[in-house]
Amino acid sequence: MTSTDLSRHLSSFLPTDQVSTAEDVLDAHASDKWHASALPDVVVFAHTTEDVAKTVAFAHQHGIPVYTRAAGTGHIAGCVPVHGGILISTEPMNEILEISPSDGTAVVQPGVITGELQQAVREHGWYYPPDPASLKECTLGGNVATNAGGPRCLKYGVTKQYILGLTVVLADGQVLKTGGRCHKNSTGFDLTSLMVGSEGMLGIITEITVRLIPHPQTRAMLGASFPDFAAAAAAVQAILDAGTLPSALEITDGFTMNAARDYLGADKLPPGDAYLMIEIDGNTETVARELPTLRDFLLEHQALRIDEAPNEDACERIWQLRRDFSYSLKHTGLTKLNEDIVVPRSKLVALVEFAEQLQQDTGIPVACFGHAGDGNIHTNIMVADYDDPEIKAKADAALDRLFTWVIENDGVISGEHGIGLAKKPWITQALGETSMEVHRQIKQTLDPKNILNPGKFLD
Amino acid sequence: MTSTDLSRHLSSFLPTDQVSTAEDVLDAHASDKWHASALPDVVVFAHTTEDVAKTVAFAHQHGIPVYTRAAGTGHIAGCVPVHGGILISTEPMNEILEISPSDGTAVVQPGVITGELQQAVREHGWYYPPDPASLKECTLGGNVATNAGGPRCLKYGVTKQYILGLTVVLADGQVLKTGGRCHKNSTGFDLTSLMVGSEGMLGIITEITVRLIPHPQTRAMLGASFPDFAAAAAAVQAILDAGTLPSALEITDGFTMNAARDYLGADKLPPGDAYLMIEIDGNTETVARELPTLRDFLLEHQALRIDEAPNEDACERIWQLRRDFSYSLKHTGLTKLNEDIVVPRSKLVALVEFAEQLQQDTGIPVACFGHAGDGNIHTNIMVADYDDPEIKAKADAALDRLFTWVIENDGVISGEHGIGLAKKPWITQALGETSMEVHRQIKQTLDPKNILNPGKFLD
Repeated sequence: MTSTDLSRHLSSFLPTDQVSTAEDVLDAHASDKWHASALPDVVVFAHTTEDVAKTVAFAHQHGIPVYTRAAGTGHIAGCVPVHGGILISTEPMNEILEISPSDGTAVVQPGVITGELQQAVREHGWYYPPDPASLKECTLGGNVATNAGGPRCLKYGVTKQYILGLTVVLADGQVLKTGGRCHKNSTGFDLTSLMVGSEGMLGIITEITVRLIPHPQTRAMLGASFPDFAAAAAAVQAILDAGTLPSALEITDGFTMNAARDYLGADKLPPGDAYLMIEIDGNTETVARELPTLRDFLLEHQALRIDEAPNEDACERIWQLRRDFSYSLKHTGLTKLNEDIVVPRSKLVALVEFAEQLQQDTGIPVACFGHAGDGNIHTNIMVADYDDPEIKAKADAALDRLFTWVIENDGVISGEHGIGLAKKPWITQALGETSMEVHRQIKQTLDPKNILNPGKFLD
Repeated sequence: MTSTDLSRHLSSFLPTDQVSTAEDVLDAHASDKWHASALPDVVVFAHTTEDVAKTVAFAHQHGIPVYTRAAGTGHIAGCVPVHGGILISTEPMNEILEISPSDGTAVVQPGVITGELQQAVREHGWYYPPDPASLKECTLGGNVATNAGGPRCLKYGVTKQYILGLTVVLADGQVLKTGGRCHKNSTGFDLTSLMVGSEGMLGIITEITVRLIPHPQTRAMLGASFPDFAAAAAAVQAILDAGTLPSALEITDGFTMNAARDYLGADKLPPGDAYLMIEIDGNTETVARELPTLRDFLLEHQALRIDEAPNEDACERIWQLRRDFSYSLKHTGLTKLNEDIVVPRSKLVALVEFAEQLQQDTGIPVACFGHAGDGNIHTNIMVADYDDPEIKAKADAALDRLFTWVIENDGVISGEHGIGLAKKPWITQALGETSMEVHRQIKQTLDPKNILNPGKFLD
């Protein structure tokens, strides 16, 4: 069906201003943060579950591919319409429908910005913990599609652990309700969790009921430098062994610290070849009492210098340093291929040693930083120009070595971002043939015409 | 196939002493804690994943029903072999294969007793939080099959939230590995969560990798009586609104308190018509400081009398009272139909009012107690003799009213126990036709011959 025909058909059951084939609109919906791009034939701006249901029913009837996209802040090309067809934008579905402290729940549309939900529930004294780095621009719909994480998932768990119920448009346009607004549920198969992280391949999420918890009264942080990565990793284990579960435990390697010295000025960073950020939260007096104890503990565990952020405002200074680490890597002028791999926590040091070896062997810089407590270390392969075929080939070979090492070491190739196109070449190696076959069986039964996000990791 | 033929076939590929058709063995595997019973044709005692895989492959070839059972402590007849066939006992698979504090994981076989795992990891200073009431006798396999809960799930989450990876024998005997030993994972569909709570209908779990967290240094509790249930429920909300997330928040109604007065002696219980148990945990000094603050807070919120348990040993006294509430109900001489329904927390008081109305209308006593923080209130319909057809009919009518009310009030019919046979009559009403259809599609694709736990809630 031509783009014009498609648009005409869709406009027969959707308001005309919700259907677009304008070049700039198609262009704006062709990619996410990854380096892949493909134009949809038409963009549908969904305002309601019914808009989505009608569109999908039509697509199902005619065997037309359907892609879903909200803010497009993903890192895996999950929303890229590689086979053209219809791109449904859930960006207009950006209403927080309900906040209920008395039930510990909120109900949102998929286009709601994660940070805005956090802010809104906080005004009631409640907390939605998942905190992807992009929380000021990413949406709940995208978070659900990829099972997004973030630093505070160490203590509080990932997106999945906060999703109580979903409204999902299935591949034939039927509307499925999963779960509900109860905090506990052992009623039937867990279709909610099956949908979370399914990257738009099993259904399109149009409403989300999330679990809220009481907001901790305050937070505080320590930023500590260490002589080397191994010492910082040992401190991570010692903190946990002592019965403390911080709300975040972020680690940074020497490569990144040196990049930050170049970017911010050497005197702006403490001595040492690794940096640890520890955030604790809880009742105000408790946090005030626990922070100095934790500081002393770190000094006993090889910390070189410690920056103390005794309250929530001061924490911002240390989180800013975390962001500056990111900017420092950008400032190198290189392109960051940011891989959200996870290793069992005992292999943190082995991972960094492997990264150093990889760098030596390939000449490609590798920077590691991220969520030390749960082993989710963002491993950044730093390349001059990923569009240059020769550089790309070398970088892809390095990625292949990285993912192979991760899989051999009981790690996983994605902890937060998902698979999409970015990690498609490694999915069978990661999951194994039996799991892939079960994936295909479930996909086939729920989407027999393969219209939902085709061309991704199952094709 | 006759029982003897079955046994002969199975013994051709399993050690003879792992296959039994002895009457007492069949008898011992006919039921769980619910009042349904059916004899299997043969019992297979599985020792390894391979034992299970071979047995299931054989059953698949011949279209023979396969039921799985470990300790048989379930409340829903989930393991009852209603169509006969092969019952696989995973009770012999009771080894803790690995405890790794450095990865925050443990690997166990499905027959491991939950309490024994908790004890074993605690010796390393680590914590497996899910704590079903039966933890001294129930198994991890059963916990996974039903997505079991417990009081501490308020703060720490249910079984699902601690399952990182599974080894699952599929309906054709293939062995599937899901997840792994990483704490974060966005690699493919969440087959782990699909299996958790699937009640043996999608696969048989033969190995479980659980997530461990640092064990809090100590615990303390308050037991507070209130003038009525509404006052106790208001205190629950006030505690949470103040930014405190206790490790447990258990509520008991007046009916149960009066039964305890009959059983223990009136002077053993404080005045009041509702009782709240609040457990907090964390660093030793923190808990010591927070407990009196919480006591004062409760006194400001209508608490009548407060029993303070300032350390872990003293907590046992209050948990004993919780168990005594249970014994008190048994002491009434009535049979407890214990329904693990959940309501949104704002409906706690409405639930108890409904229960009182139900009691008035039917003459059947109803006792409510349970996990107030997450709305998971065990609602006990107390009947003289459930085997008496007339009483059974009245009780079933009362159950029907209860579940209908729960569903109409955005509740769920099971928060911890699952569906099995016990709640089969209400599953379609609870989930709706679209969800049931998706359940059937997934079941059909993963178990096309319907050999895994047939006769349960999808048949």
